[in-house]
Amino acid sequence: MRLSTRALRAHGGVTVETLRWEDGTLYILDQTVLPRKVNYLAVKDYREVIQAIRRLAVRGAPAIGVAAAYAMVLAALEFAREGAGNFLARLEAAAGEIGKARPTAVNLDWAIQRQLAVARQKGAGAPQEIVERLLSEAAAIFTADKDGNKAIGVHGAALLSRGAAVLTHCNAGGLATSGYGTALGVIRAAYAAGKIKMVYAGETRPLLQGARLTAFELQQDGIPVTLITDSMAGYLMAQKGLDAVIVGADRIAANGDVANKIGTYSLAVLAKYHGVPFYVAAPFSTVDPAMPQGAGIPIEERGADEVTHFAGEPVAAPGTAVWNPAFDLTPGELVTAIITERGVIHPPYKFGG
Amino acid sequence: MRLSTRALRAHGGVTVETLRWEDGTLYILDQTVLPRKVNYLAVKDYREVIQAIRRLAVRGAPAIGVAAAYAMVLAALEFAREGAGNFLARLEAAAGEIGKARPTAVNLDWAIQRQLAVARQKGAGAPQEIVERLLSEAAAIFTADKDGNKAIGVHGAALLSRGAAVLTHCNAGGLATSGYGTALGVIRAAYAAGKIKMVYAGETRPLLQGARLTAFELQQDGIPVTLITDSMAGYLMAQKGLDAVIVGADRIAANGDVANKIGTYSLAVLAKYHGVPFYVAAPFSTVDPAMPQGAGIPIEERGADEVTHFAGEPVAAPGTAVWNPAFDLTPGELVTAIITERGVIHPPYKFGG
Repeated sequence: MRLSTRALRAHGGVTVETLRWEDGTLYILDQTVLPRKVNYLAVKDYREVIQAIRRLAVRGAPAIGVAAAYAMVLAALEFAREGAGNFLARLEAAAGEIGKARPTAVNLDWAIQRQLAVARQKGAGAPQEIVERLLSEAAAIFTADKDGNKAIGVHGAALLSRGAAVLTHCNAGGLATSGYGTALGVIRAAYAAGKIKMVYAGETRPLLQGARLTAFELQQDGIPVTLITDSMAGYLMAQKGLDAVIVGADRIAANGDVANKIGTYSLAVLAKYHGVPFYVAAPFSTVDPAMPQGAGIPIEERGADEVTHFAGEPVAAPGTAVWNPAFDLTPGELVTAIITERGVIHPPYKFGG
Repeated sequence: MRLSTRALRAHGGVTVETLRWEDGTLYILDQTVLPRKVNYLAVKDYREVIQAIRRLAVRGAPAIGVAAAYAMVLAALEFAREGAGNFLARLEAAAGEIGKARPTAVNLDWAIQRQLAVARQKGAGAPQEIVERLLSEAAAIFTADKDGNKAIGVHGAALLSRGAAVLTHCNAGGLATSGYGTALGVIRAAYAAGKIKMVYAGETRPLLQGARLTAFELQQDGIPVTLITDSMAGYLMAQKGLDAVIVGADRIAANGDVANKIGTYSLAVLAKYHGVPFYVAAPFSTVDPAMPQGAGIPIEERGADEVTHFAGEPVAAPGTAVWNPAFDLTPGELVTAIITERGVIHPPYKFGG
């Protein structure tokens, strides 16, 4: 994987692009080194997209979906180049590989299934034609995600009043999506409407997406942000008061149970205890109507070294055992409302059928 | 301040000493570099003890108390050496300085007041005699703390049943005390009684005392420990089940409100929601009967760089605003019981008068 050090105008007040397609290459912003470095990976092989998803160079359920859609394009390009004999079978095999990159976010499989449907369409034509159709579909997914985020922002902002102090967790921002954000989309729209007094960003251990990405994104947009450790959320609610918690989602079950970044469930319980509304902002591509309840959602567990090491330095004695679930489950009954591109949905949630 | 690199037998399975007095020198284990390095600061000047407390080389309310008692000895030694003219006035001034090292833990002032009472005693004698009395008193405080911890352990272990999974936060262990621990004293005694299946240690951001100190201490003692990020506590309770949360305290108000490491309050709320007993283990030196309720306890706020930087590396964009309270307040009604050296105390708490 070649590293491109195109710096764009990242530090000039312009939000950086999460993903960009240009001339047969997918440029992936390497989020593991933000905010210190703005590096783009120039990817031409779908296997490198899988690696980028796995090591969290690109993360956030909607962004993973878009990356997977383009991974399918790269796979199709490769197989078309190499001859059409078993094109569709090879593409289906690649889809299987891409689908296994990470288990929790449903948008990954959702985007792959959309691309497979395009490739299998009756009269889809020769491989080269299919490549073109897949490229259009990926661009459509990208654009629809961005438009959807804007709609989420409008619907969500209506839930907030002037002078609101809100808490968000992890990064459900432009960097997690095609560029505007789900939870941060709501915050951006509310800020534009003059409603946001302060955004508290939970740093989100172990990988600090809140510190590295959310605080960075909001700072770039000039939105007031205060960084806290995850452990401060309860005291923040009790001491300073809070008007809403707004988070994203990696998968939403039919009954409204939400899989999202580890720590979300604790925030939902704390919000309930303090009478603070708890909102989940997510596009419909994050809903898995085939999953009746959260208990069935696979929760990825990641390596111990994410917790025992920090920037390569050990912070725990060698051999320390770790439990490192990357996500947790929040029961729908703790979610005040789910903010989607189609509007705000209140409990009881019924996304099935 | 000279750095001594006496490695003791730290990595040979023997718990390291937090503080040691030898021939006019206070050896302070530098806890900021644990568990990577076992370094002792060899301190002969009370001002260096203040610095060591301030930069958390020595931390934990009971250990801070013991360090302050020896700081008074070092001050008395210095003033005695320099002539007896205004010995008591100088000692009182030094007491004022030492008392300002950190604001939240009451043990600091408690130990200083004990030493001042010794120095002011009728017939206390010449400065050199007072130095000897202060040294005896410091040793008595040290020993009483250790004995008290053992008693806390016995009382607390009786609250647990066989096969218990418990969660602790920060380090209320041997390193926070004279050597046995309060919360970890309970865990040590319960483990010796065959009751502990697993100890979950919350890593305790921002300074990771849970990862660096608690996991290290328990590992040294061969007690099963699993490290988690602070944000995992709620999901741990919901997913794996937990039999108790056991934490220490930096100050306990007359009504049982508890000031302790930031994150404690969130754990207390989460424990309440999940029906998990929430225990505070602390010696009576941590009780402040003059403080009617927690709201009056000064909560130290520390620098932003503890959150924005890690091992010298920035993890947030330059200029990111931070809220960094080092402690929080847990209302007494969320505390199932307070475990002291005199026994287990249940609500309603009345420590006043």
